Amino acid sequence: MSESDPHQSGRGRVTAPARPSGKGGGKGVGEMIAIYDTTLRDGSQSESVQFSVEDKLRIARRLDLLGVDYIEGGWPGANPKDEAFFARAKDLKLERSRLVAFGSTRRAKVKAEDDTVLNALLAAGTGVITIFGKSWPLHVTRALGIAPAENLELIFDSIRHLKARTDQVFFDAEHFFDGFKADPDYAVKALMAARDGGADGLILCDTNGGSLPGEIAAIMRQIALPDVRLGIHCHNDGGLAVANTLAAVECGATQVQGTINGLGERCGNADLTTVVANLLLKMGRHARLGVEGLPRLTGVSRFVDEMCNRSPQKNQPFVGASAFAHKAGVHVAAILKDPVTYEHIDPEQVGNERRILVSEQAGRSNLVHKFREMGILDVDPNDPRLQDLLNELKELEFRGYQFDAAEASFELRVRKALGQLPEYFLEQGFRVIDNRMVRDDGAWIMGAEATVKLVVGGQPVHFVGEGNGPVDALYTVLRRALEWHYPAINTVTLVDYKVRILPQALGGRSGTGSMVRVLIEWRDEERSWGTVGVSEHIIAASYAAIMDALIFKLYKDGATPAV
Amino acid sequence: MSESDPHQSGRGRVTAPARPSGKGGGKGVGEMIAIYDTTLRDGSQSESVQFSVEDKLRIARRLDLLGVDYIEGGWPGANPKDEAFFARAKDLKLERSRLVAFGSTRRAKVKAEDDTVLNALLAAGTGVITIFGKSWPLHVTRALGIAPAENLELIFDSIRHLKARTDQVFFDAEHFFDGFKADPDYAVKALMAARDGGADGLILCDTNGGSLPGEIAAIMRQIALPDVRLGIHCHNDGGLAVANTLAAVECGATQVQGTINGLGERCGNADLTTVVANLLLKMGRHARLGVEGLPRLTGVSRFVDEMCNRSPQKNQPFVGASAFAHKAGVHVAAILKDPVTYEHIDPEQVGNERRILVSEQAGRSNLVHKFREMGILDVDPNDPRLQDLLNELKELEFRGYQFDAAEASFELRVRKALGQLPEYFLEQGFRVIDNRMVRDDGAWIMGAEATVKLVVGGQPVHFVGEGNGPVDALYTVLRRALEWHYPAINTVTLVDYKVRILPQALGGRSGTGSMVRVLIEWRDEERSWGTVGVSEHIIAASYAAIMDALIFKLYKDGATPAV
Repeated sequence: MSESDPHQSGRGRVTAPARPSGKGGGKGVGEMIAIYDTTLRDGSQSESVQFSVEDKLRIARRLDLLGVDYIEGGWPGANPKDEAFFARAKDLKLERSRLVAFGSTRRAKVKAEDDTVLNALLAAGTGVITIFGKSWPLHVTRALGIAPAENLELIFDSIRHLKARTDQVFFDAEHFFDGFKADPDYAVKALMAARDGGADGLILCDTNGGSLPGEIAAIMRQIALPDVRLGIHCHNDGGLAVANTLAAVECGATQVQGTINGLGERCGNADLTTVVANLLLKMGRHARLGVEGLPRLTGVSRFVDEMCNRSPQKNQPFVGASAFAHKAGVHVAAILKDPVTYEHIDPEQVGNERRILVSEQAGRSNLVHKFREMGILDVDPNDPRLQDLLNELKELEFRGYQFDAAEASFELRVRKALGQLPEYFLEQGFRVIDNRMVRDDGAWIMGAEATVKLVVGGQPVHFVGEGNGPVDALYTVLRRALEWHYPAINTVTLVDYKVRILPQALGGRSGTGSMVRVLIEWRDEERSWGTVGVSEHIIAASYAAIMDALIFKLYKDGATPAV
Repeated sequence: MSESDPHQSGRGRVTAPARPSGKGGGKGVGEMIAIYDTTLRDGSQSESVQFSVEDKLRIARRLDLLGVDYIEGGWPGANPKDEAFFARAKDLKLERSRLVAFGSTRRAKVKAEDDTVLNALLAAGTGVITIFGKSWPLHVTRALGIAPAENLELIFDSIRHLKARTDQVFFDAEHFFDGFKADPDYAVKALMAARDGGADGLILCDTNGGSLPGEIAAIMRQIALPDVRLGIHCHNDGGLAVANTLAAVECGATQVQGTINGLGERCGNADLTTVVANLLLKMGRHARLGVEGLPRLTGVSRFVDEMCNRSPQKNQPFVGASAFAHKAGVHVAAILKDPVTYEHIDPEQVGNERRILVSEQAGRSNLVHKFREMGILDVDPNDPRLQDLLNELKELEFRGYQFDAAEASFELRVRKALGQLPEYFLEQGFRVIDNRMVRDDGAWIMGAEATVKLVVGGQPVHFVGEGNGPVDALYTVLRRALEWHYPAINTVTLVDYKVRILPQALGGRSGTGSMVRVLIEWRDEERSWGTVGVSEHIIAASYAAIMDALIFKLYKDGATPAV
């Protein structure tokens, strides 16, 4: 190992494999790996994920744009939703990916041509079919209740029937690794039955997700099945799904299955975003989506979270919002000198971006960097007004403001300092009454009533309204007070709400009189944004965060101030 | 490989190593691994995580109870918070863990005895110190701006100085793997400088988190440093921190560093909950916390999330709420026949639980486990009254209550179910008015007024009071209403206050009408305790948590109910 180019050696390389590993640089480098996505099938088995047919179609289009090789769409015939999906998927006109229908081997005692599952698979008309079968005697006898030999017939028979009528057929060997640990001969016989039936690929599944990378490798080295593609399908119960997938590729697997963001039953499947980035950027493997397709990864990841209606996981490798966010003072200083000091790859390679978190130590250069991040490109870093802004931000942070998750509140202050923020209305005050009394029958009655006073377009506006709680009441009445002039305000929805007490060091009183910080996340049909409010008074802090959200919405929409 | 016991082979084993891997069953099985937690230091560098001093002390107590070997508490002298933490940590009386102070090598051109960082480390008086130093020439020349040889002196010198004055000293070789890839000789020289200075352990850091398990293994096989403990510290930028940590252990590392829930800068550190479970249940390694300590993992994980004021990650391996939750019809049917069909370990081994239906069979043993965790040792687990309590707790948890950080609210329910809780007063209701209006001079006036109605000692009590905010006003007036009968109530102080919105899955409305959970931490002169309240109404939830705190105070003081 020479030290010829120490500036590069820590970063993922595209053209060369990672150094100096014996594995990374060994056999298999340059090989094509097929990317098989099962977000729509295995991913939809995640707790609290429920895709609509429309969601599934949108995700399929997005995966096609990303360029995965296979999109497993669901289980035809299993439920009306999957049925409808395959019917409508015929009009999808996928350009780069092939749609896959998923199902199981035929039932015992039923001929392949009479089996409802196999017939539904063929009726989906996808051209590619994957069926799963048992390879662990425990499952054969307990779950199917048949003899091990009969299960091998089911596999052979089902594959042969499908292959005669479809372009490609894959066999998912469910519980393959656990099966192999229990009975290696039988597990391999199950694979051979599928191969003999004509399967185009045998997918080894770590269904319970409990295997270690060393086990995956040891088992794969013991099976020798030339002339057939091997695939890998790992679950994350041991936190090792990605590592197990990569270990399998190093042992000859050329098809990787997983889901966007690692969705899936229990702890989920291997996260395809992480797997693909590692394969292409670190291990020197190739895929049809190519290195040039990787910058789409971050967008696809956020899109799927959107479809799941959940906040993206900030610390997700490669694609998370924090993946290239630097907070510690030591790190920030080094990063500004040379990003390679604390980044393993260039964030742009995966469509992500570097973020220097604004903190008490922020200087003018951080500020300008932050402007660029927020798309504020029209600001002269030497504008004297920036000094006042910097002082204001430092003062606010001292009082407990934190803009990391409140970019909208930050941008509003920038726009205001630069004289770019119109006055949409004037605030005159508010009142909230929370009431809980015991009725004669002993039950509680709880209520929240809010009153707001504004001046909109020169006219005083005084509204009252109710809500489940004070924040709900305030938001409801503010929206009502503004929507006559600004109807688009109606599309703003609260996504997340967090309150935290602030350290006494910041000058607040202690105890119940402490300063509190309220952080709220919002979205409308197009975008999502965060706002912050700080006060000794939790309702005042919430009011400030709501106000910022509404003004930000008006500013971003380019609303004309009411006159 | 025989198939003698197929029912067990897929599950993690405690006494035997995982089968049939060449690695898992190979050398190192049975070895003691030291568990080194850096949640309070590296973990606090996570985006939007800000621990208060009180949070850090509570987490340290919890880690001690779990039984990790080392607790890295922070960076003495770096900021007032860490300074205060180490000052107060002297009273922690840790029973199983050793507290560690973290810092860097001395500055260039400064003698070790004059260096402010080293002096602050020694002043923390922890008995164990870890310092990090550079092992990658790029960082030496770019970040430190000194010659590579001088850096080796800094390391040697700093370690020697500390070791002469402290019981144990560890050296964190920052960027060791990237450094080795760039210049293996220099990276090893950095280690040797620390060893020669007397370091008790050399910790190999994958600081940028971009290495593959194969690279970690290949590099560790190339370094031969007998007679010194090797440790491993991995970041998760490639989604491989856990796998890299386990690979290092297989290559001889006997100390693992990480954080609870994988907190940390960017994509975080290796998640210690996953690492420890894999080491003990899958790889046959031992640790001082032992297999018998593993059932505490889930509780510790949830507790740290509470301290971070964020929702636990449901799909987290081993400890997540979904880790043993079964959704797919096929899976549920099989699980009911035999859990081994879709579970890699028994959830009770890590203190987690299987979730299939809401009406799942009891958790009496969980309850007894919880009693022990909360120090309630005087309850007979076979008391029939516990069945009603169990039903009540399930109902409350379904509604969003979480008792992991609210042991007082939990204990009150236990005492009530057992008929041990006196009735100190009756609640009749409350009202809070929050008011903000613009004065003629343009300034805001903000006020909060609370009214409460109680019956104390048979007498109606109706009080009104003001505060900085609604919680302050409510607490102030409740205290005033009670102190005539219960003067000790005056010593109760609010220490921390957190609010979080709850997932819509719990049946609440979405948006500003969502359910919220309020978590409050209290103390008096003797003890500290946590309470929880859940409601759609943030003030109602706060009121419930305040009430629990006051009643808990009276109960613990053994106050005589007013007549």
